[in-house]
Amino acid sequence: MTGNVIVGQSGGPTAAINSSLAGVIRTAKDRGAKKVFGMLHGIKGLMDEQYIDLSDYIKNDLDVELLKRTPAAYLGSCRFKLPEIHEDMKTYEKIFEILNKLEIEALIYIGGNDSMDTIKKLSDYAILTGSDIRFVGCPKTIDNDLALTDHTPGYGSAAKYIGTSVKEIIRDSYCLEYGKGLVTIVEIMGRNAGWLTGASILAKGEDCEGPDLIYLPEVAFDIEKFKQRVEKLLKTQSSVVICISEGIHTKDGKYVCELGNNVEFVDAFNHKQLTGTAAYLCNYIGAELGCKTRAIELSTLQRAGSHLASRVDILEAYQVGGAAVLAADEGDTGKMVTLIRHSDDPYQCGTEVKDVHKIANDEKLVPRNWITHDGTYVTEAFITYVRPLIQGDVSPIMVDGIPRHIYRPTKKSN
Amino acid sequence: MTGNVIVGQSGGPTAAINSSLAGVIRTAKDRGAKKVFGMLHGIKGLMDEQYIDLSDYIKNDLDVELLKRTPAAYLGSCRFKLPEIHEDMKTYEKIFEILNKLEIEALIYIGGNDSMDTIKKLSDYAILTGSDIRFVGCPKTIDNDLALTDHTPGYGSAAKYIGTSVKEIIRDSYCLEYGKGLVTIVEIMGRNAGWLTGASILAKGEDCEGPDLIYLPEVAFDIEKFKQRVEKLLKTQSSVVICISEGIHTKDGKYVCELGNNVEFVDAFNHKQLTGTAAYLCNYIGAELGCKTRAIELSTLQRAGSHLASRVDILEAYQVGGAAVLAADEGDTGKMVTLIRHSDDPYQCGTEVKDVHKIANDEKLVPRNWITHDGTYVTEAFITYVRPLIQGDVSPIMVDGIPRHIYRPTKKSN
Repeated sequence: MTGNVIVGQSGGPTAAINSSLAGVIRTAKDRGAKKVFGMLHGIKGLMDEQYIDLSDYIKNDLDVELLKRTPAAYLGSCRFKLPEIHEDMKTYEKIFEILNKLEIEALIYIGGNDSMDTIKKLSDYAILTGSDIRFVGCPKTIDNDLALTDHTPGYGSAAKYIGTSVKEIIRDSYCLEYGKGLVTIVEIMGRNAGWLTGASILAKGEDCEGPDLIYLPEVAFDIEKFKQRVEKLLKTQSSVVICISEGIHTKDGKYVCELGNNVEFVDAFNHKQLTGTAAYLCNYIGAELGCKTRAIELSTLQRAGSHLASRVDILEAYQVGGAAVLAADEGDTGKMVTLIRHSDDPYQCGTEVKDVHKIANDEKLVPRNWITHDGTYVTEAFITYVRPLIQGDVSPIMVDGIPRHIYRPTKKSN
Repeated sequence: MTGNVIVGQSGGPTAAINSSLAGVIRTAKDRGAKKVFGMLHGIKGLMDEQYIDLSDYIKNDLDVELLKRTPAAYLGSCRFKLPEIHEDMKTYEKIFEILNKLEIEALIYIGGNDSMDTIKKLSDYAILTGSDIRFVGCPKTIDNDLALTDHTPGYGSAAKYIGTSVKEIIRDSYCLEYGKGLVTIVEIMGRNAGWLTGASILAKGEDCEGPDLIYLPEVAFDIEKFKQRVEKLLKTQSSVVICISEGIHTKDGKYVCELGNNVEFVDAFNHKQLTGTAAYLCNYIGAELGCKTRAIELSTLQRAGSHLASRVDILEAYQVGGAAVLAADEGDTGKMVTLIRHSDDPYQCGTEVKDVHKIANDEKLVPRNWITHDGTYVTEAFITYVRPLIQGDVSPIMVDGIPRHIYRPTKKSN
């Protein structure tokens, strides 16, 4: 490399997204980049010329280790969709003016589906206008729903957090009830894809029953059948633990959380904000079956739980960050780095690059045959897939009893 | 000791309650107890003659280590209040018949306020009837609200979990918003005592802003002043993180969660079930200030988070379990083991025994001068108190990427 690199983070934060940032910085420096800039709050911040020179912040190897252990986007994130090129050339002219001023050779964007849409549009515009800046995407999402990659960095750590927390919830639930019935419903993230909720199966083992029922959004949810299943389970056990995706919906496409007349929010990408699914089902089951219920939302904790990060995940996140810079340096643009699994056990996985046009705005769902026929559990194939991704730990650097993070003061309004 | 010991667990589970069980087993064996029985689901299970010989289950040192790392009550818990002695002698006759049949010399009950009420009544009945069985309580509650003890086992691990999780939530919150305002309200357990919510201050450090506001139930909550504070903070920062106790209430004693017309539940001790406080305040703030909000309940996770247990807490829990057996063996009855702090730094703490009549049904609140004058934060004195209790870790024994627990099959109805 002879010019500079700029890197941004976008979309929902994860426990691994900063490890990809560390990988980008390291490889860019190794390959001769003069400067590595970080855009603050992604492409939206860049448009306001909000960026930093990362060498002012990540100064030594300890900083890199702390960065790998710090959850959420160190550079700040955004949810922002670029306009179509033909509808708003001005936006693109402005972005490229800034990139040219900074002598950018490669732009790396760490994110999910919507972020890959940004890479697609920027690389298209570069080709249209003859710019030689390269644009490469680095996959990141706890949702694990990106096409053409075996899995996405961030997913493994979230899966490990979910498996561990659901196991702890099960121990808590089973000790509480004596004779009477207690139904615990755990709500896990996942709008259309059940990868995270399926990971609750990891609680199951020689030392734990695992969840009793697991419902993913890939299969239509039948509330009457659900009630019958819970009723049957309560006949033989005093505690029932059920894991559900926030996005489960009925056959006619209605989200379960909408059945309860909750207020409806939409985000910048026009996605409905889903919440309250477990609470709704708890009220329903309590009223129908007369048993005690409790709803637990894993909420933000499941994506920010760096203290329980998977070593495989953190290392792969670092690896794809490096691979993105390498691809750009070798002339690739409009591409995303993908993870290619060579074997499950022993686990082996490498990287490739794929055309981002085939990835952006697509969604990879859990295969139907990884879910049981009746849609109430996941199969062995799912376990074989997810198990390698949660292996190993990244010990938090504990200071005075609490994990240490790396800190970029952001309290004042940007 | 020449007879047998029986031990039970009661009330809400914690990450440390099984470590106390391990301490009871070890010291009882060391002091010559022939058998150590475990009552299943506390005094309620005992009344149905539900008990096990613990030597059939905890067989070696590895089992003990796993027990210390397993959250929730290994023996099962209950919420059950014994009747007044003069109102129902039959219940006591039955319990003592079972204890005599099992040749019990000492009964150790690990629990909180309500459990100490059980120790009080059983020891009173023994004195009334000339029984020489001794009854000693072993403190346990994440709420940290027991009188006459510096703190309670279980609190330190919950505090460590809360400090760590709130710090991760803050990192997540601060990266999300660019320009716009986001208010995150974290709901933490604590009906009348704010010990757990105060522990959110542990998120604060050189590398983290800490929560912006902390509201404990010890100070009346003024919703109008709350709104003004949040509005003011949003003028200078894009993200505001607030930690509140589930039990915060207005000057006239009304719980904040009741302001929202939620359904009301009461438990066996006639305690109102509080939930939805953060959700209510989020709706209120969103409507009043027009900003984005999100409510996060730490829920059961905060008491079951063994993977983040404090070493000081787990060791002290083990210690008080042993001290309870020792006290009973030395002839004490109607007592509870207490923790006495000798110094903060270096932290030194020992055990004593106190009359359970002075403890049962009392509640220790956070001292008013450990809360700021305006009631929106905790002071240095609080930090000095809590900091030693979260020190050190108990590494989970990881098997295939997930912490291993010790398992007593309980799936089928008891």
